[in-house]
Amino acid sequence: MYFRNAYKHAARFHSLSSIHHSTTSTTTKRKVIFSGIQPTGVPHLGNYLGALRQWVQLQDEAAPDTRLLYSLVDLHAITVKQDPEQLRKLRRDMMATLIAVGLDPNRSILFHQSSVPAHSELMWILSCYASMGYLSRMTQWKSKLSLPENASPLDPSTKTKLKLGLFSYPVLQAADILVHQATHVPVGADQAQHLEFSREIAASFNHFHGDVLVPPDTIISPAKRVMSLTQPTLKMSKSHSNPTSRILLTDSRDTISSKIRSAVTDSTIGVTYDPVERPGVSNLVAIMVHLNEEPGVTCDDLANDMKDFSMKSLKEKVTDCIEKHLEPIRERYLEVINVNEGKVLADAAETGAQKASESATVTMNIVRNAIGL
Amino acid sequence: MYFRNAYKHAARFHSLSSIHHSTTSTTTKRKVIFSGIQPTGVPHLGNYLGALRQWVQLQDEAAPDTRLLYSLVDLHAITVKQDPEQLRKLRRDMMATLIAVGLDPNRSILFHQSSVPAHSELMWILSCYASMGYLSRMTQWKSKLSLPENASPLDPSTKTKLKLGLFSYPVLQAADILVHQATHVPVGADQAQHLEFSREIAASFNHFHGDVLVPPDTIISPAKRVMSLTQPTLKMSKSHSNPTSRILLTDSRDTISSKIRSAVTDSTIGVTYDPVERPGVSNLVAIMVHLNEEPGVTCDDLANDMKDFSMKSLKEKVTDCIEKHLEPIRERYLEVINVNEGKVLADAAETGAQKASESATVTMNIVRNAIGL
Repeated sequence: MYFRNAYKHAARFHSLSSIHHSTTSTTTKRKVIFSGIQPTGVPHLGNYLGALRQWVQLQDEAAPDTRLLYSLVDLHAITVKQDPEQLRKLRRDMMATLIAVGLDPNRSILFHQSSVPAHSELMWILSCYASMGYLSRMTQWKSKLSLPENASPLDPSTKTKLKLGLFSYPVLQAADILVHQATHVPVGADQAQHLEFSREIAASFNHFHGDVLVPPDTIISPAKRVMSLTQPTLKMSKSHSNPTSRILLTDSRDTISSKIRSAVTDSTIGVTYDPVERPGVSNLVAIMVHLNEEPGVTCDDLANDMKDFSMKSLKEKVTDCIEKHLEPIRERYLEVINVNEGKVLADAAETGAQKASESATVTMNIVRNAIGL
Repeated sequence: MYFRNAYKHAARFHSLSSIHHSTTSTTTKRKVIFSGIQPTGVPHLGNYLGALRQWVQLQDEAAPDTRLLYSLVDLHAITVKQDPEQLRKLRRDMMATLIAVGLDPNRSILFHQSSVPAHSELMWILSCYASMGYLSRMTQWKSKLSLPENASPLDPSTKTKLKLGLFSYPVLQAADILVHQATHVPVGADQAQHLEFSREIAASFNHFHGDVLVPPDTIISPAKRVMSLTQPTLKMSKSHSNPTSRILLTDSRDTISSKIRSAVTDSTIGVTYDPVERPGVSNLVAIMVHLNEEPGVTCDDLANDMKDFSMKSLKEKVTDCIEKHLEPIRERYLEVINVNEGKVLADAAETGAQKASESATVTMNIVRNAIGL
């Protein structure tokens, strides 16, 4: 998904082989895939199944001339208050996990947004084309401040706590995409509003300056939602106060086992897949189905295979399944973090910053020339 | 003045020897003087007397370790619609005139704002500390859109035409100053609001992150207002539709003579200095006094010296005076523009960009470290 932690909603992806083109204008161009994620530290299973695994699949299935950029959007992160020391750690942990899940810094461009000033530069330029009215209707700042849909940025109770950065968030997001001339942006349905904004602001700019910016197409895929282990009617989330509600990608086998053992299920005998009546059990089944990705095997199929299992057996099975998938990620993560004092990480960040800067420079030269700078 | 063409008001300066310190905290620090001007092409006599000559004086009187930065703020210029070809020419003409009036690219850092991405970067970061309420009270966007003081950015008639860039203008202006750790900013009284904003946002940032940004002091000096030659109750202005209302710094002797000959005066016999009753005559007297800068000679003194002059003689005298001061500027301008296809200009822009980037990089490294990026 795109800026998952901005919205804290499940994201939806699918592989490049089934990309949905909302226009056909870019089908003959070299593909450029862009997505971003806020640096929130080690991601959880919901992040992985909702976005990160699909990023890896997009990478592995991409044509050789497709450029992939994945950004840790730290300039977005600071639109809410951050502890500096903590933010440094969160950025590092997120970068390490991106590499651990299989993103290859030599194939995909992994970079910290703040290491490429062109994102801010283009943001400023685009802000000269973005109307206050349009932005005040966006939902981003309202959801971040827990305000109703009809809130105004200048309501008496809002205008001192709403900072310009949070209000302007969609313009930076548009710059992130447009500065790399991204043709395809993986998004969840909840992010459609922001992508639409990116397309519209590109069109506004192009209206004055010709065919300069590339309105991006969306990559939409069916949701793979993972629910909280402790409140299975809510999504698995970093912001949930109870850490046992989520599995982190670096959790040890013991931690996974303990969290799954304490996962909320119900007292019905046997296993069925029924997200409404049996959300806890169904979530465990869905996690296995999503992780295994066996062609044609649905949640109903798997539940049926395990219909006579006790909760204990089900949980052991789920634990084994999660451990099987997370073990190599965890080991790679530890290697990336520890070997040579994190040299892999430092090298990746540096390489990513350099390649992303080159990508952005191409666009900025065109943009500057177009507007007379 | 600071961003003169944003406000189109006369600006006030004085020399460094009489700097007014609004605080004493920076008196022991190395001085950093920063000011900006919008690239509006060749400046007129009002720009020169209101700001540019004082920039040169600040340069020439500065201590060896004082850093001076003068920015052509093209990122501010694009907050209103610009023709790209025209903007390119305006930037070039402004840079050439800055050199022609005596700013030395080897002493002062002359640079196009858009050539230093750190201005936009810090703008984004500061926008995370700037409240929507504070910004909506700023007058910049209201005056640019000719709206009343009590206008709201979300008034139905405003919100589609008000772009985020214009609304956010003061934050970029604060970034311009703070990214170079400017200790002293020459401003007109009309710009006090913006300088106050820069000081407040520096304080907000420092409140969270320690003593990182330098709240700038102001350099305020008495006004040297030059009025329109055709409507002498209005300020000389680039936006006036009649080009004979203003003397450009590159006007030929013939053009100066012709514009002064057609300057509006009155039918009273003789010369007196009375700006209310005789604005046209008084403006001509004031131009001479301001240009000559003879110690102790006031407008009343000079008017008295010429009290028996006819309007024709006064105008010849004024023409001679203007020509004497502008001739070397005009010749230097033509040299800068023409010799070696403008190599002086290109070199100055490149040197300025490089030095300003170095200055900004120092600050950005401190800022990034402070916020955890």
